[in-house]
Amino acid sequence: MKRPSGIRIVAVPGFRFAGISSGIKSSGDKDLALILSQVPSVTTGLFTRNMIKAAPVNLTMKHIAAKKKCRAIIVNSGNANACTGKQGLKNAELMVQTTADELGIDSDLVNIASTGIIGIPLPMQKIKKAIPDLVSGLADSSLSDTAHAIKTTDTFPKVSMKKITIGRATGTIAGIAKGAGMICPDMATMLCFMFTDISVHHSTLHFALQRAVSKSFNMLSVDNDMSTNDTVMIMANGILGNTPLKKGSRVYNKFEQSLSELTNDLSRMIAEDGEGATKLIEIIVKGAKTDSDAEKVAKAVSTSMLVKTAIYGKDPNWGRIMAAVGYSGAKIIEQKINIFINKIKLVSKGVGTGNDKIAKKVLAKKDITITIDLGMGKKTSKSITCDLKEGYIRINAAYRT
Amino acid sequence: MKRPSGIRIVAVPGFRFAGISSGIKSSGDKDLALILSQVPSVTTGLFTRNMIKAAPVNLTMKHIAAKKKCRAIIVNSGNANACTGKQGLKNAELMVQTTADELGIDSDLVNIASTGIIGIPLPMQKIKKAIPDLVSGLADSSLSDTAHAIKTTDTFPKVSMKKITIGRATGTIAGIAKGAGMICPDMATMLCFMFTDISVHHSTLHFALQRAVSKSFNMLSVDNDMSTNDTVMIMANGILGNTPLKKGSRVYNKFEQSLSELTNDLSRMIAEDGEGATKLIEIIVKGAKTDSDAEKVAKAVSTSMLVKTAIYGKDPNWGRIMAAVGYSGAKIIEQKINIFINKIKLVSKGVGTGNDKIAKKVLAKKDITITIDLGMGKKTSKSITCDLKEGYIRINAAYRT
Repeated sequence: MKRPSGIRIVAVPGFRFAGISSGIKSSGDKDLALILSQVPSVTTGLFTRNMIKAAPVNLTMKHIAAKKKCRAIIVNSGNANACTGKQGLKNAELMVQTTADELGIDSDLVNIASTGIIGIPLPMQKIKKAIPDLVSGLADSSLSDTAHAIKTTDTFPKVSMKKITIGRATGTIAGIAKGAGMICPDMATMLCFMFTDISVHHSTLHFALQRAVSKSFNMLSVDNDMSTNDTVMIMANGILGNTPLKKGSRVYNKFEQSLSELTNDLSRMIAEDGEGATKLIEIIVKGAKTDSDAEKVAKAVSTSMLVKTAIYGKDPNWGRIMAAVGYSGAKIIEQKINIFINKIKLVSKGVGTGNDKIAKKVLAKKDITITIDLGMGKKTSKSITCDLKEGYIRINAAYRT
Repeated sequence: MKRPSGIRIVAVPGFRFAGISSGIKSSGDKDLALILSQVPSVTTGLFTRNMIKAAPVNLTMKHIAAKKKCRAIIVNSGNANACTGKQGLKNAELMVQTTADELGIDSDLVNIASTGIIGIPLPMQKIKKAIPDLVSGLADSSLSDTAHAIKTTDTFPKVSMKKITIGRATGTIAGIAKGAGMICPDMATMLCFMFTDISVHHSTLHFALQRAVSKSFNMLSVDNDMSTNDTVMIMANGILGNTPLKKGSRVYNKFEQSLSELTNDLSRMIAEDGEGATKLIEIIVKGAKTDSDAEKVAKAVSTSMLVKTAIYGKDPNWGRIMAAVGYSGAKIIEQKINIFINKIKLVSKGVGTGNDKIAKKVLAKKDITITIDLGMGKKTSKSITCDLKEGYIRINAAYRT
């Protein structure tokens, strides 16, 4: 679905952004992005757990482990540089080195990410030729160009920003993301880059990132089903001049809250942009005995192709929801389950209420909430997904052709 | 896809079959089936592991545990009798009792299965009224009517038969199945009923059934992702008069082999009839370090929506196969992987061979084999799936409307 709202101009003190077309994409769309901090930034990331990792993922993981800081991130779309062997790693290193040289900084302070087709060598001549233009295009206000340049099948760029008051100062966290194939069990590559001028200790920043991602991007996908290139990175340049945030403090809690809201915004945008999707579906699980049970149910229902096709067909087919709850692996008792679509109760104590006709009308809406009360305890979970329609197959069957 | 070949007339000594329309389906298609053995048959089954089981599943599991034998199986399509509460169980019991009365046998020797829409009470008046006609329609040669009457979204009935020489006699094993929504991770209900005149000990029959199913139906689906109604049952009436088969004997091995071929035939038919599918895809995994690794890779690739849509689009997008291998959970080394589509090598030691154009031509065929050699050891596995096209969504979005 096309997102109607335009992108605001977002600036984060001490960061500059650029996004241009280098010719990787034959369409001529933007495909090369650069993010630069004016000072070394505390940097951490979370990466795909796929055993097969793309060359840029391996290189960035090495840089972060060694330095815990970076100055710049270079990103290309249109080519994943995955399954490209030794030459793939050389190309990633060359892309980083060329960027570092052009910026006049150390190459191990430059991180890299790629997304696109797997198994094709990067067109290095085009990329090398474009990097000087990319660097000269850096500007405070170009975050939306960067968001455009990291897209693949996305129909709109994804940008969000939060402000946090710290004493008398106001800090900023902004982020961009790409991803539209979040139709589990396989997802197309998800990339997310976030930037803040707030000073944060490295271990605290990593902790906050894990917490935020576990409640947002991870509830959008299934852990093991990751692409070769998934990357979430955050840079904190400390330009705000605050005392570096430490876990547990009141200000830290505000920071974690804002970061969670930011990742939540971006993950909702990804779900809204689900390939060919027309509806955003939120699954709320209540009354689970354990957190793990709540999460299992939320994921099973949100990844059920039969549930997703039913919602697309405006069919309140709660039997498919019950079936997914049943195979989720969570501890459940059929006779205790209540299910609602928006506010319409469809299942009461495991049996249909006969409200299907009213629910059918509700399903004409764009935003759908499925609430499942297991009646077993007090734990809750949430997940986000989208409906599944013919467009998903059209896009993915023809992706390379 | 429509299966071109007609159904042969299949008979199994001592069994009679019927399939009629009782009006459960508004289309007027056949929806009620009966299988009767002239003597009590050694009977066993495998059932959905979904925590939410339909009433007929619970009733049949109870009967088999208590008796280990049965005379008859009554099956309806069009209504799953799942999530129907206490009334659902009463209705299943009434269906069994009415059938037993009409046949003049004990009700605990009658098993039952249902498939169709979840959560709607069975139309018991129609069913009760139809049972006398069903019983009077029993005939040796009516197995194909029975196969028709258990269909839901299937486009063709599924019947197969094997003959086994035992001494001077020839035994028969025949089976019918329904299932077409085998697009994991969710599958529509799968039912399979098999019949033999060979005498087999109960524990041996159960062992053979487990072995056959683990290599066929289970490699078609993912263990946990089962519908509320999945049922595989086998009846052995012993009319052949052989010494009852025991595990380990030479004749037993022949029996297990034939039963595996039978379940393999039926599971291939289900994959071929995948909702909206145009291609049958066999995944062969070689060179795994362990059986479990081989199975994980076979299942990850065969359930990947991105692989299935690529095959539908005739796109030899081996990157998606690599990604699925990577997230399968199996122990792998990227640089050791070789991938073939039919006989075309697409990936050599983890890197693309550039044979994509030739492979694209191969993908025009109906039968596709993806071979993945992990290069880690000697273990192998196989799975079967179908491509994923718009038709799947059309069928499943409109299922109840």
